[in-house]
Amino acid sequence: MNILIAGGDGFCGWPTALHLSARGHDVTILDNLARREWDVELGTQSLTPIADTRTRLARWRQVSGREMPFYQGDMQDYGFVRDVIAAVRPDAVVHYAEQRSAPYSMIDREHAVFTQVNNVVGTLNLLFAIKEAARDAHLIKLGTMGEYGTPNIDIEEGYIRIAHNGREDVVPYPKQPFSFYHLSKVHDSHNIMFACKAWGLRATDLNQGVVYGVVTDETASHAELSNRYDYDQVFGTVLNRFCAQAASGHPLTVYGEGGQTRGFLDIRDTIRCIELAALNPADPGEFRVFNQFTEQFSVLELAARVAAVAPEVGLTAEVIHIPDPRVEKERHYYNAAHTRLIDLGLVPHLLSDALIRDLLESAVQHKERIRPETFMPTVSWR
Amino acid sequence: MNILIAGGDGFCGWPTALHLSARGHDVTILDNLARREWDVELGTQSLTPIADTRTRLARWRQVSGREMPFYQGDMQDYGFVRDVIAAVRPDAVVHYAEQRSAPYSMIDREHAVFTQVNNVVGTLNLLFAIKEAARDAHLIKLGTMGEYGTPNIDIEEGYIRIAHNGREDVVPYPKQPFSFYHLSKVHDSHNIMFACKAWGLRATDLNQGVVYGVVTDETASHAELSNRYDYDQVFGTVLNRFCAQAASGHPLTVYGEGGQTRGFLDIRDTIRCIELAALNPADPGEFRVFNQFTEQFSVLELAARVAAVAPEVGLTAEVIHIPDPRVEKERHYYNAAHTRLIDLGLVPHLLSDALIRDLLESAVQHKERIRPETFMPTVSWR
Repeated sequence: MNILIAGGDGFCGWPTALHLSARGHDVTILDNLARREWDVELGTQSLTPIADTRTRLARWRQVSGREMPFYQGDMQDYGFVRDVIAAVRPDAVVHYAEQRSAPYSMIDREHAVFTQVNNVVGTLNLLFAIKEAARDAHLIKLGTMGEYGTPNIDIEEGYIRIAHNGREDVVPYPKQPFSFYHLSKVHDSHNIMFACKAWGLRATDLNQGVVYGVVTDETASHAELSNRYDYDQVFGTVLNRFCAQAASGHPLTVYGEGGQTRGFLDIRDTIRCIELAALNPADPGEFRVFNQFTEQFSVLELAARVAAVAPEVGLTAEVIHIPDPRVEKERHYYNAAHTRLIDLGLVPHLLSDALIRDLLESAVQHKERIRPETFMPTVSWR
Repeated sequence: MNILIAGGDGFCGWPTALHLSARGHDVTILDNLARREWDVELGTQSLTPIADTRTRLARWRQVSGREMPFYQGDMQDYGFVRDVIAAVRPDAVVHYAEQRSAPYSMIDREHAVFTQVNNVVGTLNLLFAIKEAARDAHLIKLGTMGEYGTPNIDIEEGYIRIAHNGREDVVPYPKQPFSFYHLSKVHDSHNIMFACKAWGLRATDLNQGVVYGVVTDETASHAELSNRYDYDQVFGTVLNRFCAQAASGHPLTVYGEGGQTRGFLDIRDTIRCIELAALNPADPGEFRVFNQFTEQFSVLELAARVAAVAPEVGLTAEVIHIPDPRVEKERHYYNAAHTRLIDLGLVPHLLSDALIRDLLESAVQHKERIRPETFMPTVSWR
């Protein structure tokens, strides 16, 4: 297949691009490299050293013998987006090209407005460009499980059947997002749903859980293909952050009680889910939603898992509770459906001690790159 | 009360400002006068001649003896919004300052993106300005019944109790909006709900139906206080447009079958609903939703009402069906709750032949200002 990956230089986008290229697809990358700039803005850096984009691409060409064309530009620039879509004429567009951190969106008004405008306008531009230049292309959009919030009923995959006052309908699942970032994804979902209905576009919204892990077969094949490992309070996801904290002798910082429960998945399953969605496209006019995660954990459970494995690599990890900087329930019901990707063939990598050990070892190996001052939350929701 | 009206020069904003001022409230107006510019852009004009903003305000001072300060500026300019909120320190902010036409948002990509950025960023700026400078102010936000779409179950006021897999919760009512404009209101609703939860702001979202009528006691008190009367395909609401069509000998153009059913209300009820919301504010942290309409009609029913009254003022009106330029169901179930404003004291002006006669006579009086080329839809949803 001919696949365009918007945001293909990022934490999920890069391993996805490599994986799909390795599987024989024709992959093109679009990216504005904003994620690398945010490291500069925030004084953070990937725990693993990562090569610059053109070095990565040259190395992949040498390792795999496969070309991945790269278009550098911004999704807010419609002329650019339309020209890329018209030039590539993709069968599928994987859309990762958004600001993806909840804390980043909560820094202040400017970051909230930037996140929503960047994400919403980028997605609108992509919808119009597909309509104009590649109407049959399948849009594979990264959403988030955080769109649903933590309702007191089971979470379904995008839609729910409601019986009400003697009548019945299947309607979009109600959304109660946690941050201006999560809200931007809710806005996107509504916009895409409408574009499918009005224009007959085909789209899959992947409401992804929290990703852990860093390494895939392809990123491991050469140091210059390494994926980024974020561990800071703004971009670091919780399990990866705990491992970096343990490696540097910092206590594992659980926000509040730690009963916050979410869906999680290994990054190796992220890339496989994208492939499954691409190989099994939505129908014209269909707006399809999959919940893309494999297991549920509470934050406290993950801290305990890391603390238990740490001694195996010579570390001791203390778990501490700090005031929750976010506005969220610290203890709640959570049960979310996630069968549709399994039905398409996903065989999950469940969270293993071996994976935690790998993350800890990787963090120890690059320990001198850790900036402990970026662990503690400074961004408040209030 | 001290009330700021954002969008106070517009079709609903102006009569609201006059009404609240007449009732003894201290009213301040904020507006960027964009609506008047869109008339220029689209080659349209109000059927009724309207005075420029400063003339209106001077006339109101003379007629009522009451001052209404006017801040001219854009809601997308945060410094401006914050300074106005800090200077006025309102008890309530009525937020009409959005692009409010569905067809306008569907003209092309630029208009879609403009509508969403303008509306979403304006509302975000207002939320941050209230948080920063008037934290106890009650935000009264104009939403739209179009946020709900046309589900096959009863529409409730903002929230719905769902029993699912043996558990139960009250969740936001699912949204299925019709256009990029209606989508912008859905985005706003989610953003405001979050701001109430995270920051303890207080807000009322008024999901308004389609407004008909033009005149209120105050706008009728002097020609220079007249309200605008839109009858064109982009900004004209359906009943007002039918009356202008009848007055100029143009057939009444029903889109498709005409079974599209919506909630409607008289503009005199709009201004009363705003007052009731202001007098009965939401609690801190509360995001309250009222469905602001008084009766349901199908488009075809309204055309028949106008055709039946037309002969009383010497007109003959033919009803014709034209292809629906919108993507919407032309026949569907529709039953929406609207009791909460009644509970607060609203006594509706139900649609009367007298009101239709007034609209027809007003249209006949200003017949020479009608531009019949703006009746027929040129904006397509497809």
